[in-house]
Formats: sequence, structure tokens, C-alpha cells
Amino acid sequence: MRHESLRPTEALLRLRPPGGTADEEIAVEMPVALTVNGVSQAVMLATPADLEDFALGFALAEGWIAHRGELLDIETEARADGIELALTVTAVREQGLKLRRRQLAGRTGCGLCGLESLADFNSLQPAPVQAPELAPGALARAMAELHRAQVLNARCGGLHAAAWCALDGALRLAREDVGRHNALDKLIGARAAAPGDPAPGFVAMSSRASHELVHKAAMAGIGLLACVSAPSSLAISTAQGLGLRLWAFVREGRATRYA
Amino acid sequence: MRHESLRPTEALLRLRPPGGTADEEIAVEMPVALTVNGVSQAVMLATPADLEDFALGFALAEGWIAHRGELLDIETEARADGIELALTVTAVREQGLKLRRRQLAGRTGCGLCGLESLADFNSLQPAPVQAPELAPGALARAMAELHRAQVLNARCGGLHAAAWCALDGALRLAREDVGRHNALDKLIGARAAAPGDPAPGFVAMSSRASHELVHKAAMAGIGLLACVSAPSSLAISTAQGLGLRLWAFVREGRATRYA
Repeated sequence: MRHESLRPTEALLRLRPPGGTADEEIAVEMPVALTVNGVSQAVMLATPADLEDFALGFALAEGWIAHRGELLDIETEARADGIELALTVTAVREQGLKLRRRQLAGRTGCGLCGLESLADFNSLQPAPVQAPELAPGALARAMAELHRAQVLNARCGGLHAAAWCALDGALRLAREDVGRHNALDKLIGARAAAPGDPAPGFVAMSSRASHELVHKAAMAGIGLLACVSAPSSLAISTAQGLGLRLWAFVREGRATRYA
Repeated sequence: MRHESLRPTEALLRLRPPGGTADEEIAVEMPVALTVNGVSQAVMLATPADLEDFALGFALAEGWIAHRGELLDIETEARADGIELALTVTAVREQGLKLRRRQLAGRTGCGLCGLESLADFNSLQPAPVQAPELAPGALARAMAELHRAQVLNARCGGLHAAAWCALDGALRLAREDVGRHNALDKLIGARAAAPGDPAPGFVAMSSRASHELVHKAAMAGIGLLACVSAPSSLAISTAQGLGLRLWAFVREGRATRYA
């Protein structure tokens, strides 16, 4: 299923600012188009690293597929104006997707934008999730390890990160992107692509806690989300409705549970 | 043109976290649907303050209208599942919008997402802009004043801010939102709604510099954008292409010009 992947180093580019005396590294943001069985679905602005993870995670978060076995192939192709991720899903899934596409013209992945009316807002409802029980100190450990795992961000700033952590806070996987929602999509994809049943754990993120992050986590069956910064009202109410445990302001020895 | 506005205090809500001993203030994030002459266009997640500014700025940034005179009315209506902003534009504009809508199913406001394919990426090209000349110290002054103007964020965290500043850095207008792009839309709308010709100036933002911010600024004819945090590669190249001057990492006595 894996095709040639862009190297993580291409997530950064070097340039010399006008009037500057030395090169700087800059986080790459570029258009990434997703097609499913040949039909255009969405264009996201993303950092070109771990794009197969992104494709799989985005497909799961959008409900294009229910599990990784329904995604048969991912092809990554460079275009003049961006990157195209061409996904092939099973025939059964393709049929469901076409039906939903007719109902939701323009449905895309960045939170709610792309929806055309309020009536579409609740049309993609994740199933309730089960919150895992954490070991003492797990949140602080996860955030410390997440900070160390932000290797791209340490070089140029401007990237968010999402990490999958064991119940004691030990970091298992981390992904970075200029968009926090893309970072979570990549993490969800990387976790789904790993062989075997996933061990229990939770997601730690470098960002604020917004509705879209709670929604994406729940779509992937994740029951606990911990964020460095503030929660929004809709993140809290969405988490409450889904049984997802939401921690925010996880920093400087503090952590508050909001749902 | 102005209807009843939500009060800024409704941008926050009070809640007591489970197990907490005191109430906290939380930034409100809620679905805001935009319709134009009765036709649904987009749903954004936004903070319900300054929504008429948001409607006007969004309409300008999306190219729905070319100037504020083409927006005849804004009605704000509370719905069970969010807020609807019902825009009325002139008949000539309505016709152009329908044409473009057929070409770009799902085109929405959050950067590029909502576009369906890479071919749509460059379909909404702002005209080149003219960068203004700043007085010495203007960037540092603007950022200091922006920080003091973030009155909602100071209470609960989780909000970004965009400010319109004179050429000496004096802050003239500021708007806040859980989304940085929404904050900029609100600022653009507030500036366009102010009577008289706008005085020269620039935009200062509390966030990173992404493509969408550069694009929105240029759509509003703004020639200089200064951001607290890192720029992305596409923000730089877009700014270069449009003649927009882009400053980033404007903090702690530092400021780097990237375009």
C-alpha cells in the first residue's frame, strides 16, 4: 500500500530573508488535494511529510472509510501546483461516498468549513467513545515527551504536533504539520497503519482544543484528548456529548479536565 | 445596515470544570452559517462577537463583493444549532456569485479547504498590493498595543487577534476570535465599515503567518502584514507574488521581513 514517500526534510525549506545575512529554515505549507477513486474531494494546506498517514487519517476522520482495510491504495503525485493524494477505496465504500457527496456538496476536513448550511452541522456524528484511565503523572510526561518530539518545529517554528501516548504518558508516535488538524489526521493515520490492534492510550497536542480536534479524535475511536492550551466551548460540549475526556491547559504543572 | 449585534460578553461563557471549585471563563466557538440572498454559502466556526464585521470582511475576502456598497443588508438570526448571517448583496453581485458558485462547488473561507481540486487553487487571485512605509519602531509598538487589546484572550485564552495599525504602530481597531482567519475577517469588515476613506496602515496579528492570512489581507487591499510567530513557505511566496510586505517573528525585540 505504501508508495514513495516524501522525506521529512522536505517539510522544511531554506531561504535567506531579504536583507538577511544567513539562511533560515521555514515550515513548508502547500496545497494537498485528495481524490477518492478518481473524484476530487478536498484540498488542504499541509506540510508535505507523512502524507500517506495524512491520507489514511483524513479518510477515517471524514468517514470516507470505517477502517484501514477499506483503503486499498494511496498514490502520491507531485503536480505543478501542489501534491495529489489519490486514494482508492473499496467499491462498497465508493458507493456510500457518492451518496454522501450528493448530500453534502463541499464537505471538507477543516472543522466545519465546507459545510454549506447549519443543517449539515451534525450530519457526521461519531459513535460515543470510552475514556481510558491514566496513570498518575501521565499528562505531564506526555507533554514533556511531545515537546522533545517536535523536531521540525524546533528548527523553524510554525508547526503543531499530535502524539499518541500510552496510559503512563510514554510517547509512541508523533506527527507534525503547519495545521493542528492535519497533525492529528497524520497521527490517526499512522496509528491505524501500525500492525496489530492498537494499545490503549490517548492523544496529546501542542495546540488549543477546538471542536474539530475532539470530533476527529472521536471519529478514530480515541477517548481522551489532552491539549497544551485553552479549550473552546464547542470542544467541551462536543467532548461531553461523546464521552471523550478532554484535558486542557496541560502545562507548567497544571492540567484541567473539562469533560 | 447594522442590526442587533451580539454583545462581546457573549463571546465567553462561564462554567465549572468537573471536580473544580470555581467557575472559569471559556472562549465560545459556535457554528456561524453565511447565506447570500437566501442561498447557503458556508459554515464557519467562530466566536459570536462582532458578527456584522465578520460578515462584511468574509464577503470581501471571498470576493462575494468588491466593496462595502455592494452589501445591502446583514441580518443576524439565532438558530437552534448556531447563528445564521443572512447577507443581501446587489443583483449584479448575486449573478456573479451564482456563476462562480457553479464553478467552485464548496468554495469556503478557511484557506483553501473547500476547494475540490488543485485546479481551483489559483482561481481567486487578489490584485497586487502596495506596501506602505512604516515609521521606526512601528512594529514593536503595534505588537505591544495588540497584546493589550486582547481583552477576551486575557480572560480565558484560546483566542487570536488581528489589529489595524497606523504607520507609526498606533492601534486603531482590533478584533478577536477563536480562529485567526476569523479575527482577520472581522478586522477587515470593521475597517471597511468605518466611515470615510481608510487611513494608510497595516495589520498586526497574534498568530503565525499562513497563506490564508496573506491572501485575505491582499483581497482587502492591505499591503503589509506583521505576525508574532513563524511564517509558512506559502505565506512567503504568496506575499512575494502580490507585493505584500510580510514580517514575522515580531517579538522580543526581533522582527524579520520575509517578503
